[in-house]
Amino acid sequence: MSASEIKDLSRLAIHTITTKGWTLEQCVENFSAAGVKGITVWRQALEGRSDAAIAEAGKRIRDSGLSTVALCRGGFFPGKTEADRNKALDDNRRAIAEAAALGAPLIVLVCGAVPGIPLEDARKQIADGIAAVLPEASAAKVKLSIEPLHPMYAGDRSAVNTLGQANDLVEQLGSPWVGVAADVFHLWWDPALEAEIARCAKLGALDAFHICDWLSPMADMLNDRGLMGEGCIPIKKIRGWVEAAGFNGFNEVEVFSHRHWARDPKDFLADIVSSYLKYS
Amino acid sequence: MSASEIKDLSRLAIHTITTKGWTLEQCVENFSAAGVKGITVWRQALEGRSDAAIAEAGKRIRDSGLSTVALCRGGFFPGKTEADRNKALDDNRRAIAEAAALGAPLIVLVCGAVPGIPLEDARKQIADGIAAVLPEASAAKVKLSIEPLHPMYAGDRSAVNTLGQANDLVEQLGSPWVGVAADVFHLWWDPALEAEIARCAKLGALDAFHICDWLSPMADMLNDRGLMGEGCIPIKKIRGWVEAAGFNGFNEVEVFSHRHWARDPKDFLADIVSSYLKYS
Repeated sequence: MSASEIKDLSRLAIHTITTKGWTLEQCVENFSAAGVKGITVWRQALEGRSDAAIAEAGKRIRDSGLSTVALCRGGFFPGKTEADRNKALDDNRRAIAEAAALGAPLIVLVCGAVPGIPLEDARKQIADGIAAVLPEASAAKVKLSIEPLHPMYAGDRSAVNTLGQANDLVEQLGSPWVGVAADVFHLWWDPALEAEIARCAKLGALDAFHICDWLSPMADMLNDRGLMGEGCIPIKKIRGWVEAAGFNGFNEVEVFSHRHWARDPKDFLADIVSSYLKYS
Repeated sequence: MSASEIKDLSRLAIHTITTKGWTLEQCVENFSAAGVKGITVWRQALEGRSDAAIAEAGKRIRDSGLSTVALCRGGFFPGKTEADRNKALDDNRRAIAEAAALGAPLIVLVCGAVPGIPLEDARKQIADGIAAVLPEASAAKVKLSIEPLHPMYAGDRSAVNTLGQANDLVEQLGSPWVGVAADVFHLWWDPALEAEIARCAKLGALDAFHICDWLSPMADMLNDRGLMGEGCIPIKKIRGWVEAAGFNGFNEVEVFSHRHWARDPKDFLADIVSSYLKYS
């Protein structure tokens, strides 16, 4: 099944990190003025705010006609000591409280990996960590969405590196409050992707869909993502797969890029919109 | 099953690219003097030599007490035009002739990927390309060993990104002249690795085992590999898996590193030997 035709911005969301030169208020004002309909809020954009101030920010987002798609991000569960792991749990509990205050239905989890902790141990610590904060998540009605990260981040950012692994974790944890955030940057190379997207949706776990592009060559493993159309990811094809699986949520533009961050954010936002309409 | 204890250098081989400041002759002389027992020859080290001169180089290697483990590398089959793909086939036929002249039992294949060619098309072109040169490989008694490359190279270096995919290709091609070169750098993150190593060996396809380490952070996606012990790859554990599967060939040190290449190759070679004994 091919992807639906994108005719307008009704399903376009942007992550605040994408235009990280802007404050949350500037993101909201400019996204809204551009006709963007969703925003995923990175916690950096909330730094220093009380729960009341976060709730107020959530209201401002809604009043501007935007949906809060997600809070980014929780996770980073593995740690070498119990103290480290408990600190991570506390931070995830704090993220759940922030998401609830903001009115975000889910938190994207970058699950974590630590050099020196074997991957299978890290994977167990991740499962244990999510299980530990599930009571708070369900009480707050905030879903925890595991984002499988590209295998090039297995050393230090996430030991969950394929959609298949994320789906296995969802099955293992067996809670309606655990799901998956699928990002084309991390997953596009995987020959099992179409099948695992279908499986994820059958599990009721396909919570979010992130888009950007993969540059060849890539100057920086973290902060040289491309805007849609600049690279080689078959975004429309993958969007067709998530739609065939029943996903009808936002297409979230998440670009980390020193190159784009160096530009005037207004020009970049205009390019996000035009490349979204043309290449997503 | 844990790995056998490494007590000597009898199974240590080094790729000429690892000490790329040296000519082939310098590699042979220095590796042999250090007690190294195997060498994998990169084609750059043979550049400009006739088949007769390559045969002479092969004799020099044998006379120095070294085994020629492999020729590196063939592949790069995908191309946007038939002319490009035919050029790749010619180059692989040339590699087969070089391997035969050198006395190398196998050629490592970096299968190729081209931005703009969808991965599934590239994968088909790879299977077709290997099949096309198989008659020459079998006639020359040179095995073609598919090296699955890390998913971070799916954009521009190889569309074969897991050991599972390489095993699938081996099954599909069904020839005793097609096998696999397993490199810990590319494969260490894969939760299916142990099972796919066993499957590969059952297929009679586990031809080669490459070692190095994964640095976090990594300064360069191509040329910042670590020496064993510098990073987070569980090399001993993975070596245990390949040995449990029946592999008893060379442990080949393949390090691309601007950092190490900038050093005196003799000092680097001494470190290769000591890190091999300690961390492999």
